[in-house]
Amino acid sequence: MTKLKWGMIGGGEGSQIGPAHRLGAQADGRFAFIAGALDHRPEEGRAYARRLGIAADRAYGDWTEMLAGERDRDDRIDLVTVATPNATHFEITKAFLEAGFNVLCEKPMTMTVEEGEEIVRVAERSGRICAVNYCYSAYPMVRQARAMVRNGEIGKVRLVVANFSHGHHGDAADADNPRVRWRYDPAMAGISGQFADCGIHAMHMASFVCDDEVENLSADFVSTIPSRELEDDAMVNFRMSGGTVGRLWTSSVAIGRQHGFDIQVFGETGGLRWASEQPNQLLYTPVGGRTQIIEKGEAGLHEDARRLSRVSIAHPEGFPLAVANIYCDLADAIAGETRDGLPDAAAGVRSMAAVHAAVASARKDGAWTDARPPMFRQE
Amino acid sequence: MTKLKWGMIGGGEGSQIGPAHRLGAQADGRFAFIAGALDHRPEEGRAYARRLGIAADRAYGDWTEMLAGERDRDDRIDLVTVATPNATHFEITKAFLEAGFNVLCEKPMTMTVEEGEEIVRVAERSGRICAVNYCYSAYPMVRQARAMVRNGEIGKVRLVVANFSHGHHGDAADADNPRVRWRYDPAMAGISGQFADCGIHAMHMASFVCDDEVENLSADFVSTIPSRELEDDAMVNFRMSGGTVGRLWTSSVAIGRQHGFDIQVFGETGGLRWASEQPNQLLYTPVGGRTQIIEKGEAGLHEDARRLSRVSIAHPEGFPLAVANIYCDLADAIAGETRDGLPDAAAGVRSMAAVHAAVASARKDGAWTDARPPMFRQE
Amino acid sequence: MTKLKWGMIGGGEGSQIGPAHRLGAQADGRFAFIAGALDHRPEEGRAYARRLGIAADRAYGDWTEMLAGERDRDDRIDLVTVATPNATHFEITKAFLEAGFNVLCEKPMTMTVEEGEEIVRVAERSGRICAVNYCYSAYPMVRQARAMVRNGEIGKVRLVVANFSHGHHGDAADADNPRVRWRYDPAMAGISGQFADCGIHAMHMASFVCDDEVENLSADFVSTIPSRELEDDAMVNFRMSGGTVGRLWTSSVAIGRQHGFDIQVFGETGGLRWASEQPNQLLYTPVGGRTQIIEKGEAGLHEDARRLSRVSIAHPEGFPLAVANIYCDLADAIAGETRDGLPDAAAGVRSMAAVHAAVASARKDGAWTDARPPMFRQE
Amino acid sequence: MTKLKWGMIGGGEGSQIGPAHRLGAQADGRFAFIAGALDHRPEEGRAYARRLGIAADRAYGDWTEMLAGERDRDDRIDLVTVATPNATHFEITKAFLEAGFNVLCEKPMTMTVEEGEEIVRVAERSGRICAVNYCYSAYPMVRQARAMVRNGEIGKVRLVVANFSHGHHGDAADADNPRVRWRYDPAMAGISGQFADCGIHAMHMASFVCDDEVENLSADFVSTIPSRELEDDAMVNFRMSGGTVGRLWTSSVAIGRQHGFDIQVFGETGGLRWASEQPNQLLYTPVGGRTQIIEKGEAGLHEDARRLSRVSIAHPEGFPLAVANIYCDLADAIAGETRDGLPDAAAGVRSMAAVHAAVASARKDGAWTDARPPMFRQE
Repeated sequence: MTKLKWGMIGGGEGSQIGPAHRLGAQADGRFAFIAGALDHRPEEGRAYARRLGIAADRAYGDWTEMLAGERDRDDRIDLVTVATPNATHFEITKAFLEAGFNVLCEKPMTMTVEEGEEIVRVAERSGRICAVNYCYSAYPMVRQARAMVRNGEIGKVRLVVANFSHGHHGDAADADNPRVRWRYDPAMAGISGQFADCGIHAMHMASFVCDDEVENLSADFVSTIPSRELEDDAMVNFRMSGGTVGRLWTSSVAIGRQHGFDIQVFGETGGLRWASEQPNQLLYTPVGGRTQIIEKGEAGLHEDARRLSRVSIAHPEGFPLAVANIYCDLADAIAGETRDGLPDAAAGVRSMAAVHAAVASARKDGAWTDARPPMFRQE
Repeated sequence: MTKLKWGMIGGGEGSQIGPAHRLGAQADGRFAFIAGALDHRPEEGRAYARRLGIAADRAYGDWTEMLAGERDRDDRIDLVTVATPNATHFEITKAFLEAGFNVLCEKPMTMTVEEGEEIVRVAERSGRICAVNYCYSAYPMVRQARAMVRNGEIGKVRLVVANFSHGHHGDAADADNPRVRWRYDPAMAGISGQFADCGIHAMHMASFVCDDEVENLSADFVSTIPSRELEDDAMVNFRMSGGTVGRLWTSSVAIGRQHGFDIQVFGETGGLRWASEQPNQLLYTPVGGRTQIIEKGEAGLHEDARRLSRVSIAHPEGFPLAVANIYCDLADAIAGETRDGLPDAAAGVRSMAAVHAAVASARKDGAWTDARPPMFRQE
Repeated sequence: MTKLKWGMIGGGEGSQIGPAHRLGAQADGRFAFIAGALDHRPEEGRAYARRLGIAADRAYGDWTEMLAGERDRDDRIDLVTVATPNATHFEITKAFLEAGFNVLCEKPMTMTVEEGEEIVRVAERSGRICAVNYCYSAYPMVRQARAMVRNGEIGKVRLVVANFSHGHHGDAADADNPRVRWRYDPAMAGISGQFADCGIHAMHMASFVCDDEVENLSADFVSTIPSRELEDDAMVNFRMSGGTVGRLWTSSVAIGRQHGFDIQVFGETGGLRWASEQPNQLLYTPVGGRTQIIEKGEAGLHEDARRLSRVSIAHPEGFPLAVANIYCDLADAIAGETRDGLPDAAAGVRSMAAVHAAVASARKDGAWTDARPPMFRQE
Repeated sequence: MTKLKWGMIGGGEGSQIGPAHRLGAQADGRFAFIAGALDHRPEEGRAYARRLGIAADRAYGDWTEMLAGERDRDDRIDLVTVATPNATHFEITKAFLEAGFNVLCEKPMTMTVEEGEEIVRVAERSGRICAVNYCYSAYPMVRQARAMVRNGEIGKVRLVVANFSHGHHGDAADADNPRVRWRYDPAMAGISGQFADCGIHAMHMASFVCDDEVENLSADFVSTIPSRELEDDAMVNFRMSGGTVGRLWTSSVAIGRQHGFDIQVFGETGGLRWASEQPNQLLYTPVGGRTQIIEKGEAGLHEDARRLSRVSIAHPEGFPLAVANIYCDLADAIAGETRDGLPDAAAGVRSMAAVHAAVASARKDGAWTDARPPMFRQE
């Protein structure tokens, strides 16, 4: 099993996201880290890359240099991860796709719906993989939930309830801390705060597990800390194409909730519940029956849950290995196996459309708003 | 400590509510059960009352007979509980209040807002107690939460999230079962299904714990089982007079949730979380600090939590004793002590106004709607 | 349904146990409280009884007076509860049994094994009910567990693990507080501290759920606070008649555990787990299968679990109603129905023998010791 | 940061332990995997090593070949992991230590106490690191617990209770399955079954967190499935050098427990509780105060907890990264930083002595037995 060749843009020294991706890519030995443009300061980026073991000729000063350098090599990288500031994702992702590289882009994939649609088209034309890092969808028990839904084990889905609420931005005294403030400042974060930051993970999860897409929505956005221009709490009701009703609450001022990301799916013949702080269990209740605790690693799980787990039952696997699971999926997809399960460019643009729809709805007192990218409205 | 004299209307043989009230009233020895009109069939009601130890002359055939019989006695009852079908609550409650009796009315207090306002006025004129059985508010740790909010221990409340979602009506095959069907049939249940049945408990709880009132709301109602005319799932966003933002989800098709009634209150300096299936604990997180588990019965609780608990720390007390706590409060109030804590007629009419507002909002795609009874809009 | 006539000895003003029994006896309307000798100070006892509504001629000054007074009445009490200091249980229980009364005795039934055996014989001769208040055994889900074991649903029981550990006596600074100290002082508590106080509940529970008896045991007792003469922490290994292996840990210095009473039963084909702080759920795992959450009030429970629950699924019922369940069982037994389920005098003497055996074993470095009362060794 | 050079003996294709070590060593980029003798079948081992990217000249046929090959290289490996069958650990570990290599040995380090003592002496003479893979001790919150104990935050430790009980060998029908059977067969597993397999992890954890050593013990071993020669359930009481009382239960027939490894530590001024299935939280209760939930990643943790965590608060980290933490510690130790925290050869021989002492005690009806290796008895 030869390792695939992997490079990274962004994720420089001191970032949280750099180590997370490097661990994810390398944990299972599927990728070798051999190229990088890690910092917006060229020299720092080259030096850091070399300290991480990258050869001098592949320790690049910026992404354009990296694109130029890698494009014509025989041993060019098989995958590039884009973990730069949000506003640059579109340009970089597009350029690498057009040059024939597979890309894993951090979320948000783009800042506008139009850009997002362009990425979808470019990816399609190129035939390359364009994945977006909705990594929570790669927890084994989330995959089990999706497989159960697909397999009809809870019947037609009536209702999905997804929350992603924490309290880490609840301290008004801390609101001017730059580490926090930018998230609620439209000049830096764009049109949405907490919904775009966390809520969109919950919305992707709802689509992913239900295997369905959000069609329209109604949003209630509030800034509970007055100095904030963007919302720090939001409630979004939605409807999916298949008729499923959705409820989504996201907050950053829910003091005491740590990483309150959970999903509940209720179908005609059963219900499923999963929470990210206890990711190795999935609660399943058949209608009229008792709640059962499904454990990661138990016998008889669906294949997609089975293959994304490394250690036996009740040995917990956590967030960094969910990221690693995305890389496992990428390695398989690059090897020509299925791309099913990988959050793709369509997922990226759908998220962007949902953010724009939610902002529009919230500004109109919750008016129901089409949440689909134009390109997917003819469906 | 002489026992107070208590009578009951409704709650006949085979009902669930009759034993619950009799246990609640008698568990702590505060009330003696001495009069009743327990059944809509006069003979059955009299016979059952006598089997329960009621003297023959106070085993009444119906509520008018009971009113006539009790009104002029020297030893007339101190409190009457009204646990008849919903549509009759108004008439009976009004008549007993006007005759100078204290009343505990099952929810809903009335079917219309106008009736509710009339009860408020009648109660005020009479000087008598008119309480509504929002018994979840009488759990000791709910009282602790309210006392902490009042005491400023979590600062100004920004956000309250209350859910009351279960899955016991999730089986479509069971939807025509008369025991279930009536709840979703406007001919029997009125204008609202699950929101009026369960959601309103959550809304009362939000007001109760936050010590504030709902001002306006936006609702999304759905019937996930097509044969149902009334909603079996609802999301309601609301705002309170003091500016608090509210989120309320209620469902009866959330298969796997048993009695998913919980409340989360987030203030400027802390958060509180409580769940009815684990009612003896309250989670408290000061901003920037660790979550603490507050236990019923621990040293240093607020007085209202302390006095409503019977057994020492970590000996669980459950739902029937929450009902008993309402009766303890009633006994105290009848003895002339504070009525604070007792859900009153104002709470009853506010709930009714909220139900009507939610129905109106849901019919207008979630338009924000004033949720206050007209009599309380000048505040 | 005429109420049974009930009297109480002990449980005077300010005690915790008095209200608990009065609630338990009266909550379901099965017993009327009509006689009492409530205090060791005759006048205080009579006055308190009258305040609680006892007629003057049945408000007794002490138990001998009560025995004399009740013995020859036509309307004598149907049941007497003995809730006096431990050292008096034997004498009072014996006297009332011999006079033909049914008795509910607080634990410990006696101080010695010999006395316990005498109670067994007296109860047998009298034909009366002699019950001991092992009230935890009356939680509905404990009854469900026992019924499942009896019904073979987990196969032959291999192993039972019961803990009753809390931390409420863990503060050395509080050890001289009289409210705490007496429990570790042989002059007041007898030969055992924490094991006799709490551990014995766990041992009874193990026997009760497994439907089997402890045969021999090995104990390790320690006093972690040096000023204590009696143990505040104990581990007891035991074997039951049917071959089941037992493990029992009890502690009063386990700071952070509040009411850490739980039981786990492991058989050839399944396991059961229950905890007193979450008493309305029972975890059941069939061998090779998933853990299921059995809920109090769900459809299809065993009869003994069903009948001892008052409110529907997931409405919690707590400790005071477990006591009330003992009184329900007593009412049924007095009415001539089964005594099965009621902890009886044999259970009382077995507990006493186990305490003595554990003390003897602990003094001999854990030597295995017969834990059966002599009268039950021929079995 | 140049990667350290790492090799592995054992962990061939299809093993669970091979991938776990490779992930652990490589996840954080601290080690490069460059040498291996992975299989007892030389050709298979060499081929598999090459498939994993090992150069041909360092893909060895067996450990003697690997020792010979690595010993004289300038670029010899910095660390070798020994993950071969238990009976071979002693010989290989000793040989590599003597040749000047750092070693991470799987548990058990040796089969006898004498061998264990020899490893301690060899390691000491060599100055090299000899670590044993008690990886549960490397969870961040276990490190937090130990740091709190060392820092006096719960006062002098009175009591430690450690359990490691699961039910995965509870199916008698599966007992003859070779994958299960060998664990209870002295010809293959040695003198102890479940205690040596799982219990010893709990005993190491108790020593590790309490920062103290087991001095003597009393054991009760049983085989609940008759065909088993070695125990499948054990209770061990022990005493530590500092006077701490210990309780340890381990079982493989506790059907329904999945990975029931937990530890509770009770001191004079507080208690700590941790469970391996929820490893990112630590419960802390100060005496007389409320239980607090300490979260991995929260501000103000002890350094040893902080540095062994990769992602922010409430993003779970699981078992594979606990293994990775051992490798982080090894990398630091090789770089000359502290070896504190690394389970060492002394820990390895102490475990072996405890196993032998427990077997001896169990054979003598629980007689208290010195659990220390002779070399540590003069302390």
